[in-house]
Amino acid sequence: MQKIPVGVLGATGMVGQNYIRLLQNHPWFEVTYVAASPRSAGKTFADAVAGRWLMDGDIPAAVAGLIVQDASNIEAAKPHCRFVFSAVELDKQAILDLEERYAANDIPVVSNNSAHRHTSDVPMMIPEINAAHADIIPIQRKNRGWNKGFIAVKPNCSVQSYMAPVYALMKAGYPVASLVITTLQAVSGAGYPGVSSWDIIDNIVPFIKGEDEKSEQEPLKIFGRIEGNRIVDDTSIRISAQCNRVPVIDGHVASVSVKFRDKKPSKEEVIAIWEAFRAEPQELNLPFAPERPIIYRREDNRPQPKKDRDTDKAMAVTIGRLRNCNVQDIRFVALSHNTVRGAAGGAILGAELIKAKGYLE
Amino acid sequence: MQKIPVGVLGATGMVGQNYIRLLQNHPWFEVTYVAASPRSAGKTFADAVAGRWLMDGDIPAAVAGLIVQDASNIEAAKPHCRFVFSAVELDKQAILDLEERYAANDIPVVSNNSAHRHTSDVPMMIPEINAAHADIIPIQRKNRGWNKGFIAVKPNCSVQSYMAPVYALMKAGYPVASLVITTLQAVSGAGYPGVSSWDIIDNIVPFIKGEDEKSEQEPLKIFGRIEGNRIVDDTSIRISAQCNRVPVIDGHVASVSVKFRDKKPSKEEVIAIWEAFRAEPQELNLPFAPERPIIYRREDNRPQPKKDRDTDKAMAVTIGRLRNCNVQDIRFVALSHNTVRGAAGGAILGAELIKAKGYLE
Amino acid sequence: MQKIPVGVLGATGMVGQNYIRLLQNHPWFEVTYVAASPRSAGKTFADAVAGRWLMDGDIPAAVAGLIVQDASNIEAAKPHCRFVFSAVELDKQAILDLEERYAANDIPVVSNNSAHRHTSDVPMMIPEINAAHADIIPIQRKNRGWNKGFIAVKPNCSVQSYMAPVYALMKAGYPVASLVITTLQAVSGAGYPGVSSWDIIDNIVPFIKGEDEKSEQEPLKIFGRIEGNRIVDDTSIRISAQCNRVPVIDGHVASVSVKFRDKKPSKEEVIAIWEAFRAEPQELNLPFAPERPIIYRREDNRPQPKKDRDTDKAMAVTIGRLRNCNVQDIRFVALSHNTVRGAAGGAILGAELIKAKGYLE
Amino acid sequence: MQKIPVGVLGATGMVGQNYIRLLQNHPWFEVTYVAASPRSAGKTFADAVAGRWLMDGDIPAAVAGLIVQDASNIEAAKPHCRFVFSAVELDKQAILDLEERYAANDIPVVSNNSAHRHTSDVPMMIPEINAAHADIIPIQRKNRGWNKGFIAVKPNCSVQSYMAPVYALMKAGYPVASLVITTLQAVSGAGYPGVSSWDIIDNIVPFIKGEDEKSEQEPLKIFGRIEGNRIVDDTSIRISAQCNRVPVIDGHVASVSVKFRDKKPSKEEVIAIWEAFRAEPQELNLPFAPERPIIYRREDNRPQPKKDRDTDKAMAVTIGRLRNCNVQDIRFVALSHNTVRGAAGGAILGAELIKAKGYLE
Repeated sequence: MQKIPVGVLGATGMVGQNYIRLLQNHPWFEVTYVAASPRSAGKTFADAVAGRWLMDGDIPAAVAGLIVQDASNIEAAKPHCRFVFSAVELDKQAILDLEERYAANDIPVVSNNSAHRHTSDVPMMIPEINAAHADIIPIQRKNRGWNKGFIAVKPNCSVQSYMAPVYALMKAGYPVASLVITTLQAVSGAGYPGVSSWDIIDNIVPFIKGEDEKSEQEPLKIFGRIEGNRIVDDTSIRISAQCNRVPVIDGHVASVSVKFRDKKPSKEEVIAIWEAFRAEPQELNLPFAPERPIIYRREDNRPQPKKDRDTDKAMAVTIGRLRNCNVQDIRFVALSHNTVRGAAGGAILGAELIKAKGYLE
Repeated sequence: MQKIPVGVLGATGMVGQNYIRLLQNHPWFEVTYVAASPRSAGKTFADAVAGRWLMDGDIPAAVAGLIVQDASNIEAAKPHCRFVFSAVELDKQAILDLEERYAANDIPVVSNNSAHRHTSDVPMMIPEINAAHADIIPIQRKNRGWNKGFIAVKPNCSVQSYMAPVYALMKAGYPVASLVITTLQAVSGAGYPGVSSWDIIDNIVPFIKGEDEKSEQEPLKIFGRIEGNRIVDDTSIRISAQCNRVPVIDGHVASVSVKFRDKKPSKEEVIAIWEAFRAEPQELNLPFAPERPIIYRREDNRPQPKKDRDTDKAMAVTIGRLRNCNVQDIRFVALSHNTVRGAAGGAILGAELIKAKGYLE
Repeated sequence: MQKIPVGVLGATGMVGQNYIRLLQNHPWFEVTYVAASPRSAGKTFADAVAGRWLMDGDIPAAVAGLIVQDASNIEAAKPHCRFVFSAVELDKQAILDLEERYAANDIPVVSNNSAHRHTSDVPMMIPEINAAHADIIPIQRKNRGWNKGFIAVKPNCSVQSYMAPVYALMKAGYPVASLVITTLQAVSGAGYPGVSSWDIIDNIVPFIKGEDEKSEQEPLKIFGRIEGNRIVDDTSIRISAQCNRVPVIDGHVASVSVKFRDKKPSKEEVIAIWEAFRAEPQELNLPFAPERPIIYRREDNRPQPKKDRDTDKAMAVTIGRLRNCNVQDIRFVALSHNTVRGAAGGAILGAELIKAKGYLE
Repeated sequence: MQKIPVGVLGATGMVGQNYIRLLQNHPWFEVTYVAASPRSAGKTFADAVAGRWLMDGDIPAAVAGLIVQDASNIEAAKPHCRFVFSAVELDKQAILDLEERYAANDIPVVSNNSAHRHTSDVPMMIPEINAAHADIIPIQRKNRGWNKGFIAVKPNCSVQSYMAPVYALMKAGYPVASLVITTLQAVSGAGYPGVSSWDIIDNIVPFIKGEDEKSEQEPLKIFGRIEGNRIVDDTSIRISAQCNRVPVIDGHVASVSVKFRDKKPSKEEVIAIWEAFRAEPQELNLPFAPERPIIYRREDNRPQPKKDRDTDKAMAVTIGRLRNCNVQDIRFVALSHNTVRGAAGGAILGAELIKAKGYLE
């Protein structure tokens, strides 16, 4: 199979670099185009990130020599990539405009940005949960008069640890009424340079701008369904989230309390549901799909970021400490790798699903 | 005024050392007696902790030269102290026995240990909340046939940040139905050497043995009342707690969601209640009482351990991020210094209250 | 005594804030003027630093309400301050110009910036070492045709831990031939936001731009002497420094190897010299002078940043681990608080010395 | 090829676990025997380390079910392993005795312990440097009347980062007169639980018991040569080492200053020597041999533990910051992974070399 040529917008930033790292040796996709701000344009990628390559290992050789293009110059992209991953760092309106211009020019966009997350005909995907939302793509094209282009987004990193386990229970016949969540989020979630070391060594910061709101609202769309020409939120579930920054490099932890709407599964049943959970990415055997999306650990003191974040290509969610909750029904602790499953890796899995569904032809 | 001579049991451990540090220059109490395991007995305190003095600053000169006694030798203590702070590290039964033997021998015990926390005639004190529980002391003496001795304890460090703010609301006429709490606890809470650096640098451990249970059960007794010859729990409130260890030196943070039983105060009202809150320790002007037991900070990103833990002799609780909760009624983040307010400092305040009430004569 | 009104240039930055914190309740100086970039000008200081007050505790009330002025507007400063501490963050030429304009306008400048450190008639002061360099001030005035103004600077934070102990030995009759130094420097030395947490949690960065050079060259001027109208370096000592950034909040550590030019003191003699060392700041009883400038600790495992940085108002240097060096003559480990002794506190002590010498009238 | 059955003594400790992790899928060796203290004996390995498995990933399935034996019971080992890796934690005399008993019983011992490092007929191996020392094995057997058994050891983790680069220069014709070294060592070097988090978060500890001495003395033997029936130290080089503990999980950094005996290579020459350096492990293509034992990075700010420790199976030494030294001749910063290259991995490479040389038949 010929690999699909892919561009990365915002390639010099931390998320962009992570795309480049993760797409090394990808069986379907190949980075053939890198774009960033005009400041970097015209340099080789290696020169553009000199002294700022943040990933482990060296710059992949195939990308090091690519000439960085100005991300706003869509014509430059056309000959070189079938679709793009977008990790540009601009203000919201500029992102909305730029991503729509790419899509209107027949270049699909799979985006990390929050700008389009609540655009009603843009799917916000966690492929194990709402693979069906990919089917909004032809509707989106029709809504907007686009031909081959489309926009798809991934949700915020903070929600990734608790969405799959909650969804697995819902799907198994235990609808959920409410969630009370406290997150302990790694510094890499803030990008680079992101959190000042002065603020976080020997400290906790109980605030991440906009994060409580994203953690409460995005799940409603992810759990929603396509109605007519748009995706409609599932408003039957109430979520309260309090997000904290902690001195951890990678890996977001969430302490979750769940109340079910009707009946409540036993502890053994919950674990069995999680361990049996498989979804379309697994059935389609997508390259970035973890074999088991949810891993339950029986040790008292797991999951831990340092020990569990890299499980199964850093794409699995690890859970532990399932107990009865004295106030709602059950409690557990969940972990996902925020810059892989929660960012570039999650978006790659989304693109794989979209490709498998035939929307990237 | 002549200072009251005080002993410290378990004086060579981390909590014991903190007592010695905090009681330096105390206006009422003076450390005149130190006891520990037989291994340390017979050495000067300075020799016994050589290479293991964990506090900032040097060993207080007045204590450095005291000869450490065997804590099990109560006769040795009698001539030298009116009462003792107990921070011995033994198994539960041994602590129960030892503390009772001191009390039976006319030496009151104010203890950091959990052994007696659920003994029904032993007060578990947060002086701003249940000063009235000190009045169980004459009943306890009568129950047990003791003369001058008694046992009083302080609750677990994990509850200290959220108890005062919740109590202030209850006292102001807003009874509480339930609390969902997630704590982020500092490593000093585990004592010394306590948490291995290998386990906690770049990591979170979502488990502290026994801590969820203590955090859920101890508040019920603290909110309880004296009935007949014992303290009866307040069982009208349900608490769910999930306790995490984080890489912070000092200062426990709690993310708290509160549901009220009947009516719900407005945000402004809650803040006003907290800022106006004063209790017996403030009225009695006790030496370790913070001027304002609850400090509300309006900045988005507070409280933080590094910035707020030392507020007002490290005895104040600092709160921030008061918001509506989508699931219960309100949410907030609370912080207290775990080894001062949550341990030795809290016990000293308790002893001050007991003294002010006349039970130390 | 009427306090001397003082201005802080660059008052809203981290160093500026530290001046404001440290000058609270200073017996001689009072902050009456704050200046920063035009962006902050016109706001109250409290508004200008809203959300960016980095110090422990609250903004001193007397400064919170001051209106921030544009630092380039010297006329505004004239009525309000007798001299200024400069912590502006500009490029080197702009700092040179600005500080000279203040001085030319009769407002002395005591500066944290490196711009003027190697200007030959500007004293670079560690008051315990080169108090005599203050006597360049009348010469500087004459050189430049200034009346009341002058410029004095403090050296880099990285040199503060080893300069006093080395100087004490030199002064006691043991001239030094060479130093091999490795520093372990705290993140606060990089200012705010400074070092990214992504770069330093679970990591060491063996490079701080310009720091090796400063650590090697500045001591030569500090050990120098006034000759004619300038300060001449002491070039008899060779210094090799390798500077590392480590995940510590405050406190720079240096591992130092010393070779003497002629004879070598015994270990006991070295310790005795250090413990007996006193200098002009101590004799003059300056407010910020530590009682003992050099504290030698005999424990194996000291000095440590967390335990020793705050010793004696964070102005003392703490030393430990004195041993023979297999290659040079002796080795030791030294520590100083980089943002107090090494920055604002050191500059305040310098200003106190200059005041005591009569150059601030 | 049939794999060689191998035992691990002290298998339940941190170093023992690391052997088991690293030997997974080893092409030559297979862990078939695990032994520890009598406390663990009789349990499956999985049960013996329940709650104490410290490695990333799960316990290798092939080892999880092995029954842990009492390490002092050599008869039990005989049928199951051709040789053993020793990571027992006993006092020095007990280790000396135990390892000698294994060797006397025809079971060779490759040891992490320091007990036998200065035994004159025991090779202390860094295979890239002193592969020739393996040839003491037949002499050792003869000295002691042993048949198939022998003892070989690996040096301390603290020396691993600077030995290869210094040796490469010596071998290229630049004999070295002296080294001044300061190390910044990771907490994993202290084993588990090892360093208390209370001691090292926001802190540096400038002392590791015995480490300065090991870092100064072990290189002399490693650089030595076989004379008659023993290895004689190279005493022509003087080494001064000051060892610090820093809050890093894995990866020891050394800041090194080198003085050459005669001539001094240019900077370009030094880098060329390091980059060209290959030795017997590379020529023999040993499984654990890094392709390039020394990697020089030209970026200003490398090596860094987090970025470089895992290079080439965590077996390569990474160097950076080569500069002239104002006091000696050159300075550089070197890094090696302390628990892989510096411990179990280095010992495995040593065993591979010994096997390749035919001493394991």
